[in-house]
Amino acid sequence: MKNTFGSSVSVTLLGESHGAEIGAVIDGLAPGIPVDEAFIAGQLTLRRPAGRISTARQEADPFRIVSGVFEGRTTGTPVTILIPNADTRSGDYSRGAFRPGHADYAASIKYRGFEDYRGGGHFSGRITAGLVAAGAVVIPTLKCKGILIGSHIARCAGVDDVPFSDLSADLPRLNVLPFAVLDEAQGRKMQAAIEAAAAEGDSVGGILETAVTGLPAGVGEPWFDTLEGMLSHALFSVPAVKGVEFGSGFALADMRGSEANDPLRSGPEGIRSLTNHNGGINGGISNGMPLLFRCAVKPTPSISKDQLSVNGTTGKDEVLRIRGRHDPAIVHRARIVVDSVTALVLCDLLAQRFGTDWLGESAI
Amino acid sequence: MKNTFGSSVSVTLLGESHGAEIGAVIDGLAPGIPVDEAFIAGQLTLRRPAGRISTARQEADPFRIVSGVFEGRTTGTPVTILIPNADTRSGDYSRGAFRPGHADYAASIKYRGFEDYRGGGHFSGRITAGLVAAGAVVIPTLKCKGILIGSHIARCAGVDDVPFSDLSADLPRLNVLPFAVLDEAQGRKMQAAIEAAAAEGDSVGGILETAVTGLPAGVGEPWFDTLEGMLSHALFSVPAVKGVEFGSGFALADMRGSEANDPLRSGPEGIRSLTNHNGGINGGISNGMPLLFRCAVKPTPSISKDQLSVNGTTGKDEVLRIRGRHDPAIVHRARIVVDSVTALVLCDLLAQRFGTDWLGESAI
Amino acid sequence: MKNTFGSSVSVTLLGESHGAEIGAVIDGLAPGIPVDEAFIAGQLTLRRPAGRISTARQEADPFRIVSGVFEGRTTGTPVTILIPNADTRSGDYSRGAFRPGHADYAASIKYRGFEDYRGGGHFSGRITAGLVAAGAVVIPTLKCKGILIGSHIARCAGVDDVPFSDLSADLPRLNVLPFAVLDEAQGRKMQAAIEAAAAEGDSVGGILETAVTGLPAGVGEPWFDTLEGMLSHALFSVPAVKGVEFGSGFALADMRGSEANDPLRSGPEGIRSLTNHNGGINGGISNGMPLLFRCAVKPTPSISKDQLSVNGTTGKDEVLRIRGRHDPAIVHRARIVVDSVTALVLCDLLAQRFGTDWLGESAI
Amino acid sequence: MKNTFGSSVSVTLLGESHGAEIGAVIDGLAPGIPVDEAFIAGQLTLRRPAGRISTARQEADPFRIVSGVFEGRTTGTPVTILIPNADTRSGDYSRGAFRPGHADYAASIKYRGFEDYRGGGHFSGRITAGLVAAGAVVIPTLKCKGILIGSHIARCAGVDDVPFSDLSADLPRLNVLPFAVLDEAQGRKMQAAIEAAAAEGDSVGGILETAVTGLPAGVGEPWFDTLEGMLSHALFSVPAVKGVEFGSGFALADMRGSEANDPLRSGPEGIRSLTNHNGGINGGISNGMPLLFRCAVKPTPSISKDQLSVNGTTGKDEVLRIRGRHDPAIVHRARIVVDSVTALVLCDLLAQRFGTDWLGESAI
Repeated sequence: MKNTFGSSVSVTLLGESHGAEIGAVIDGLAPGIPVDEAFIAGQLTLRRPAGRISTARQEADPFRIVSGVFEGRTTGTPVTILIPNADTRSGDYSRGAFRPGHADYAASIKYRGFEDYRGGGHFSGRITAGLVAAGAVVIPTLKCKGILIGSHIARCAGVDDVPFSDLSADLPRLNVLPFAVLDEAQGRKMQAAIEAAAAEGDSVGGILETAVTGLPAGVGEPWFDTLEGMLSHALFSVPAVKGVEFGSGFALADMRGSEANDPLRSGPEGIRSLTNHNGGINGGISNGMPLLFRCAVKPTPSISKDQLSVNGTTGKDEVLRIRGRHDPAIVHRARIVVDSVTALVLCDLLAQRFGTDWLGESAI
Repeated sequence: MKNTFGSSVSVTLLGESHGAEIGAVIDGLAPGIPVDEAFIAGQLTLRRPAGRISTARQEADPFRIVSGVFEGRTTGTPVTILIPNADTRSGDYSRGAFRPGHADYAASIKYRGFEDYRGGGHFSGRITAGLVAAGAVVIPTLKCKGILIGSHIARCAGVDDVPFSDLSADLPRLNVLPFAVLDEAQGRKMQAAIEAAAAEGDSVGGILETAVTGLPAGVGEPWFDTLEGMLSHALFSVPAVKGVEFGSGFALADMRGSEANDPLRSGPEGIRSLTNHNGGINGGISNGMPLLFRCAVKPTPSISKDQLSVNGTTGKDEVLRIRGRHDPAIVHRARIVVDSVTALVLCDLLAQRFGTDWLGESAI
Repeated sequence: MKNTFGSSVSVTLLGESHGAEIGAVIDGLAPGIPVDEAFIAGQLTLRRPAGRISTARQEADPFRIVSGVFEGRTTGTPVTILIPNADTRSGDYSRGAFRPGHADYAASIKYRGFEDYRGGGHFSGRITAGLVAAGAVVIPTLKCKGILIGSHIARCAGVDDVPFSDLSADLPRLNVLPFAVLDEAQGRKMQAAIEAAAAEGDSVGGILETAVTGLPAGVGEPWFDTLEGMLSHALFSVPAVKGVEFGSGFALADMRGSEANDPLRSGPEGIRSLTNHNGGINGGISNGMPLLFRCAVKPTPSISKDQLSVNGTTGKDEVLRIRGRHDPAIVHRARIVVDSVTALVLCDLLAQRFGTDWLGESAI
Repeated sequence: MKNTFGSSVSVTLLGESHGAEIGAVIDGLAPGIPVDEAFIAGQLTLRRPAGRISTARQEADPFRIVSGVFEGRTTGTPVTILIPNADTRSGDYSRGAFRPGHADYAASIKYRGFEDYRGGGHFSGRITAGLVAAGAVVIPTLKCKGILIGSHIARCAGVDDVPFSDLSADLPRLNVLPFAVLDEAQGRKMQAAIEAAAAEGDSVGGILETAVTGLPAGVGEPWFDTLEGMLSHALFSVPAVKGVEFGSGFALADMRGSEANDPLRSGPEGIRSLTNHNGGINGGISNGMPLLFRCAVKPTPSISKDQLSVNGTTGKDEVLRIRGRHDPAIVHRARIVVDSVTALVLCDLLAQRFGTDWLGESAI
């Protein structure tokens, strides 16, 4: 599949930056899940640009649920959410030079020049609003099942956040922050660094760290549809994500087995490990410990500096200066996309494991 | 799908460490691809433990092609390769304590205690022999198409290899090395460090860096079946891989956009970028530059030291000391698995893009 | 997948009879295919009720292409077509007795009572408008490739049409008929029989016979994704279709091999068979002869007569008399749905075989 | 997918008529299902040629379970069953004329001449032994769940069997018959007709009618992965099946709605219909009534008469007389294949609906 991901629960993404509407179709959701439109709106707001460190493009992201919800609950048939593209100024964009770091050139080869190039078209970060809306349909029902997802900006522009300390307190708090850090002071430093880069017409990247608590042990479909395989597959679809690591990830490469192996102990809640270097996953299957992973987010490719490029029409080299509105950082906005993608992948694996009704069963 | 991966070209993995046979079924391969049995044998040998830094288990890995090859070429119908498990000593293993760092506990929950626990069963690294054999069927035909794949041990036990310098020379050289490093001296240091860990009953991890040259621009099926998404999905199935990054990966998080964006220039071979921080991929689609990615490989979980664990039968805590044969490092063996998985994923995406015949067309 | 069908080219169906909008997402279409909105409108009109033999519900079926088309051509990314539900009168329907012959009862079990039951909800024949719109995007490009699809009402209410005589003339003529028969006089008899049934508050069924010319030999992906398997899978999704047969179908059961085997002869256009009892398919693969199949369409389950049923709310037996608007026959309307589904399945198999660009290559 | 079918439970078919081994890989089966090797052997015997009305090729069909079964039960990982090709006489076959009615010509185009043409290669009916073995793994566990499958030869060579009368008695009786008819006298007439055709060097076809009892209501994944869609998809993969109809099938085309709609009544077992013209399926979902469908089986294409054909090497017309062993009818052998395919498809849909453990839960 190309724009559809998932087996038992799937999401299909559609739309272009400057088309009429963007959106998502979620299929295979259990019937009876309450759909909280205010929550969806809130999640879309968290993804939306705001303040000095984001682009001036201000869209209210009104959305319409076109199918699959009846009397406030999922019907079990496709849930379609559409978001109109209100504030589009096509004049800002034209087929000129391929923007370095963007999909422009690669897409022009793949789609033979027929792609909608305006504002990145189907490759615009805006398309992630569909993912966020889709995720927002299922995040509350996962919560009903005791499964909490949350992410913080572990690093941005060279500034580190503090690590997770108490997930049961950290995750709910992070979920509602527009700039999700555990330590506010570090967050202010990050934002200052973003503004400094913006002042130079440049952009910065960062690292998102995500935790999931309450996921039952035994979820994941090896060899291939492992938790790591499925999550990474979907996470790499989030624009700008260029690295994904689980548990201690790349740091495991420097550990010894005696350190990396998480010792097991039995306890009142069953078998747990004393450390969690494996990020809650062994053999691609959840082991009952919190799921932990990190995503590297590259700096926004849209910058205001002169860049060497090639014109897509003439094929000639030129110096490109991108005008219009762009974010000096997207790591804080990518956070909610990562949470949403995580929720959708977990729903799929849970539905594969426990059947198509499970997710709707505890809904009240 | 669980043990099948790929859409147009797919691979199905089967078998357990101590079962009768392990193997793979490759479906969707173009008809007419010459199958080089000596090459398959050579690749299996590169995966096979050898020397002081690997387990003493010495299997010749004889294989049989059971279907899908006729008069030395693929028929276009499923190619089945089976490898008997000759040298298995079940006595070495029994359902005792869950081995920390292994899939044992998670698998016992997922499979409700019915899994074949002997030697890790379906989760044994031995199962990767099927992936290597499958990859060995297609690596030569990719080469005919001008597509070369190669990996080196970029880091092991805290020792770094030198970076790639000239891919056209580096890749063929690496392909035949049992311990694939670009700098032999650094490789000797790594092996010494592995032996030191082994002497302490411990194990070490490392990082594999892979490059692919000759991949045409325009390959990848966004939003979801991107090059990054498909490759990471398959790579995380390789046991012990806990992180995957493309291009400059996690280092991109600390770069500015002006550094991370690869400037474009036109030239005799078409449009190329002057740097390759994006690892040959933009928007999930190949851009004509070499594909570059790195995999974090955790230290082998089988170590000889005492470990805290829980007994799978009694549910009681105990101290586990694993006996039997195990590798103090697997990063050097994982290399050929990573190359194989890469080859299979590329074949799938190429067949999706160019049709089911394409891979067999240049074969002579 | 549930509401998504197809591998290389896929279609996702969404919507309910009385929801805001219904529609389809077509993914994987080659870039550069010209999209003919007038043709889409015409196809939707052919599906639309009209005249005495159809329901009085008169919807103009205005549609919007929301994504995937730029400057009149497909972009290669998802094409989304939405059709608003304008003329819906929810008052006509309420959760009362399960309508015999409809999906009501089975859906209430599957979806645990959360389904949108109004007007059949997601199971309404109205949802086929999405399939027709999707098919209308690709039918012209198949024609550019020399592939023609057409169906006639081979039998209705006990009245037979004449058989195909000259496909090259028959198919284009059938394509534009609202009541697609080869012999007008027989068509008038069918319509009279439909009206007679309607006068009694009853309904009738029929058989559709479809032919496809110009399909190259060698299309189909055995063992499972054969032409017959893929087509039947999709055709049985068309509401009311309860039988599918290829070539001489059930009549083959009474033939001898010497009659059923189509003798082969070489000729200027390659190898062809002298008869076509196998309907252009051997071993699940096209053989260059016209594709031929027939679909049994059951009588419309909505009738005005009293019917024994069970109330969905009380669980008690009751006598149901369905009020509101319904068709005394749908075989003539199902025709365009069958053509559309056929087109979509062929696009998928052709794209699998020849790659993602092929369908767009001859477009001018 | 090509040679893999199913989503939650899948089967992969492999092998060629004259290759080393044929077989199947079943993935996604619940852990803990007891595997009855004697039952598998019995089912393979029912598929095997026997007696005067079948080919003289007598293979004992010994099979090996190579993976996925441990201590007599499924492990939850891929179950691989292999069947060696013992009694192959390649000398009987060579690339000569394309055999009319067989896949030979179509396959030669699709596979560009690289297919293993010996004995039909991958298109040989022999490959169905893999399906039968796979089905035999799950049929007993379906029985534990109260789900019974059985088929009879409803018609052969123009001779009709009597209809089902009491499914609870009919199905177990049919399951063990080598020539599965409800009325023995009619069965003898059929066999006499087969022998008469054989005496003339010809072959005959027939119709198989299948019933499934005990399937819970609410199974099927519309719009596309309906019971009818999934079953027909798989059934058309059975060689020689050219038609599939559910319930009254093509006869529904001549009924009125008032007859075809099955009236509903409530009762001690829930809601049931008084008739079953819809074959236990509405809207693609099971409704709790017995599942009923019929498959048209064409006459065996291998006959001893002279046939017009074209030589695959020279491209010249010639008269073909097929030598070697062949069946004058396969409808009685196809029966067990149809049952097996049905079992596998039901397992897939049940696992999608109820989760990956469900099938193994009642196993004792």
